[in-house]
Amino acid sequence: MYQRKHGQIEMKHLLKFGTLLLTILFPLVLLAEEGGHGSPYASDFLAIAFLLVGAMTGSFIAKKLGQPRVLGELLIGILIGSAFYYSGDKVAFSIRHQIEIDHVLSAVDLTQPWESEIDKEVAQLDIKPEVAERLSEVLKSSDYEETYLHSKYALLFSSIGVLLLLFMVGLEVRIEDMLKLGRVSFSVAFLGVLFPFLLGYLITKILMPETDDNTAIFIGATLAATSIGITARVFKDANILHLKEAQLVLGAAVIDDILGLVLLAIVTGIVTTGSLEFYSVAVIMAKAVAFLGVIYLLEVKFLRKIINGFSFIAGRKTFLYFPFVLLMVLSYVADAIGLASIVGAFCAGLILREAYFDDIKLEHQSIEDLISPIEGVFAPVFFVMMGFQVDAGAFTDWRVLSLGLLITVVAIIGKMAAGFFIGKGYNKWLVGVGLIPRGEVGLIFASIGKSIGVLNDHLFAVIIVVVILTTLVTPPALTKIIQNMDTDIKPEEA
Amino acid sequence: MYQRKHGQIEMKHLLKFGTLLLTILFPLVLLAEEGGHGSPYASDFLAIAFLLVGAMTGSFIAKKLGQPRVLGELLIGILIGSAFYYSGDKVAFSIRHQIEIDHVLSAVDLTQPWESEIDKEVAQLDIKPEVAERLSEVLKSSDYEETYLHSKYALLFSSIGVLLLLFMVGLEVRIEDMLKLGRVSFSVAFLGVLFPFLLGYLITKILMPETDDNTAIFIGATLAATSIGITARVFKDANILHLKEAQLVLGAAVIDDILGLVLLAIVTGIVTTGSLEFYSVAVIMAKAVAFLGVIYLLEVKFLRKIINGFSFIAGRKTFLYFPFVLLMVLSYVADAIGLASIVGAFCAGLILREAYFDDIKLEHQSIEDLISPIEGVFAPVFFVMMGFQVDAGAFTDWRVLSLGLLITVVAIIGKMAAGFFIGKGYNKWLVGVGLIPRGEVGLIFASIGKSIGVLNDHLFAVIIVVVILTTLVTPPALTKIIQNMDTDIKPEEA
Repeated sequence: MYQRKHGQIEMKHLLKFGTLLLTILFPLVLLAEEGGHGSPYASDFLAIAFLLVGAMTGSFIAKKLGQPRVLGELLIGILIGSAFYYSGDKVAFSIRHQIEIDHVLSAVDLTQPWESEIDKEVAQLDIKPEVAERLSEVLKSSDYEETYLHSKYALLFSSIGVLLLLFMVGLEVRIEDMLKLGRVSFSVAFLGVLFPFLLGYLITKILMPETDDNTAIFIGATLAATSIGITARVFKDANILHLKEAQLVLGAAVIDDILGLVLLAIVTGIVTTGSLEFYSVAVIMAKAVAFLGVIYLLEVKFLRKIINGFSFIAGRKTFLYFPFVLLMVLSYVADAIGLASIVGAFCAGLILREAYFDDIKLEHQSIEDLISPIEGVFAPVFFVMMGFQVDAGAFTDWRVLSLGLLITVVAIIGKMAAGFFIGKGYNKWLVGVGLIPRGEVGLIFASIGKSIGVLNDHLFAVIIVVVILTTLVTPPALTKIIQNMDTDIKPEEA
Repeated sequence: MYQRKHGQIEMKHLLKFGTLLLTILFPLVLLAEEGGHGSPYASDFLAIAFLLVGAMTGSFIAKKLGQPRVLGELLIGILIGSAFYYSGDKVAFSIRHQIEIDHVLSAVDLTQPWESEIDKEVAQLDIKPEVAERLSEVLKSSDYEETYLHSKYALLFSSIGVLLLLFMVGLEVRIEDMLKLGRVSFSVAFLGVLFPFLLGYLITKILMPETDDNTAIFIGATLAATSIGITARVFKDANILHLKEAQLVLGAAVIDDILGLVLLAIVTGIVTTGSLEFYSVAVIMAKAVAFLGVIYLLEVKFLRKIINGFSFIAGRKTFLYFPFVLLMVLSYVADAIGLASIVGAFCAGLILREAYFDDIKLEHQSIEDLISPIEGVFAPVFFVMMGFQVDAGAFTDWRVLSLGLLITVVAIIGKMAAGFFIGKGYNKWLVGVGLIPRGEVGLIFASIGKSIGVLNDHLFAVIIVVVILTTLVTPPALTKIIQNMDTDIKPEEA
């Protein structure tokens, strides 16, 4: 019924829609001016709507071209982001240069004149002159607080989006299945960290023999990171979260995050103090293991009782509130012990079972039903914003691009190799490719490397190219692999 | 089934719940320190969870005491807010003094040293010495950007909450029913602005004969404002949005917002320029009427076509995305022309009909089903945050309190009188009491009055008392009236 009716909706509707939207809403927007109530958030409401429509459009075009939806969202994000960035939009500039802005703002001496402090701190950054000039201009303008706030709001929405996405992914995976695959996951994660690390170190030494050891080590460490958001989204869209390969990749990504944290501590320790501090590394590992231990204990021992207690206060709303509160609390705790907050969000989904709510929920209700609308609104914003932050300018420097391409190849081979060492009975391609995206975790590594001085501006740009390419290459590659698989996979919903 | 099972959940569960939560989560939180990924939003995730649990608890206690849930949320907000505020929490301080902070930040001269500028600007504010001292301290501390951001995020969540609430209320009301009541709504709104305005002017002149005319006029205008959030929530909780009285109150509130806008322009014009600027008043009225006209035109002529066009791109997700996008866009537009953004949100709900989505949506799905989980999470945050911002200290000054009480009585009589002039067949009490809360609209009026110098600190504190009292008195009063009504009202859900 839906299919038939939908067929009748044609291009002319699209044109009509656009024309109507412009003729009706545009005059209203023109009427706008300062006045009356003046909610400080009004323009952010419009921004959410705009990002959602952008996500829809990108997703629609990608689908028409037979590509995964998430690729369309990322690309439309790059498009919108670049358009705003190069047209001089201050908020877009602030979003893309948040690391530099936060650095400058935390460094200014408030006893001195603001403007000269900004100039001084910006001058100390290792960035292009034209970027430095724009940065000074933005931070010295009288409305910089507002610019700063709007950029932070957009990033806040996108952060909530990726938390909800990973939570939903966690909901669809059963913890026993994850644990059954524990040993395999661990070896995939371990090799998936080891290979890219070694290969990254070697390629840096080979391509740039003059580079010092610390820099090569840091590039290796950056390549070891896995960013699970992209892969999780593709698996979810393709309805294959029930496959053991999907669960293997998710499990490996969680362990990767812990290994990455340990690696970062080791590498940062070596770079900054010149020696390996066993104590701090042990503390980090202990915390991460304790986190997973507590999560597991929660699941087997306490969760049902906690939910019963919670329902005493929240009544039937427990079914909405408890998952949401658990999601937010575990995301916070994961972040607080140094893990990615999305690991906490994933674990929150993983340990929740519908059965725990049997006494409370209405029939035919599921946690997915309640949380998926919230996720549906916020998650696309994450992927558009991820594209929004991509510096398309990184591709215009030939030296950066070529070095980036070579390192990307190494980064891909490293993760795929990890997939090829698992035993029989798995689709090695799906596992290996699933681990490829470096995403925001790679960016965080790179920005730490920049801040402790082992990555210069050039190498930082190279890492950005690697992050972009590994992120963009994964969705189509995964989709191809999934299409070629011999399983009973439900097709993606229209 | 639910009822029976729920009866078995006893106090011991609650105690167990608390103990478990503390023993399990507390050690994890203690483990927390700076490290690893460090999402800048992690503490805000925790804050959302905290506010939700606060809302739940307040709502639970209110219910047990036979009071409306929203009163519990407001009171727990006052409790939490005061606890944080008086324990020296910077974020709580920033939330409560956002008007002053925004004022100071917009006034500092960036060519001068930040600290001395802050001191200078804070000294010019008409606030208590101890507040001024704390304000300087917060703005001069090195982490003030962070404090400022966290306070803004909390307010952002609460803004989204009230938009979603009014949208949901709009969904439950049919536009034809509203229009049928148009003339009655208009006369109620008009009298509901006129009476409090005249009474407010008179009482100020009587109680403080030395006050100049402008101040008395401004106090009158402030009393004319209606804040519909509280009443809408009580009506929604009590499932009486289908009653003609509820629709009358909602319609009157929308018109009130327009009349209030016009009144504000007139009064501000008289106070600042000494004369009435007909041109600017006419422009404001034209915009507001144009807004409602366009909304109406959208509904009768274009909405179905726009939705069809939208569905060409968004497919089945239209059913989630379109209402959300419309909500955000109309909230923005309403704000942009000077109306409250919640008026836009209400109109967005009002004009949407399930029937428009017949070709797209799945069977058994409703817009309410999809949006209500999002609303369920954000709306309680609004009411807790509303309480959070209440300055309990306003009640400790005997002179402020007594004057506030007298003006509150006048404010209540003014709105109730408007209800008593409607014809037969309506529950006059329900209408009159429904219009009593002044809420954030009254606060906005008062802060404008403060900024143009007609309200001194003392009178501003008085207005705050009036806003608090009218807000707190309404939910129990409305609930009593509803309980005494002879209609087939469905009981509130547990």
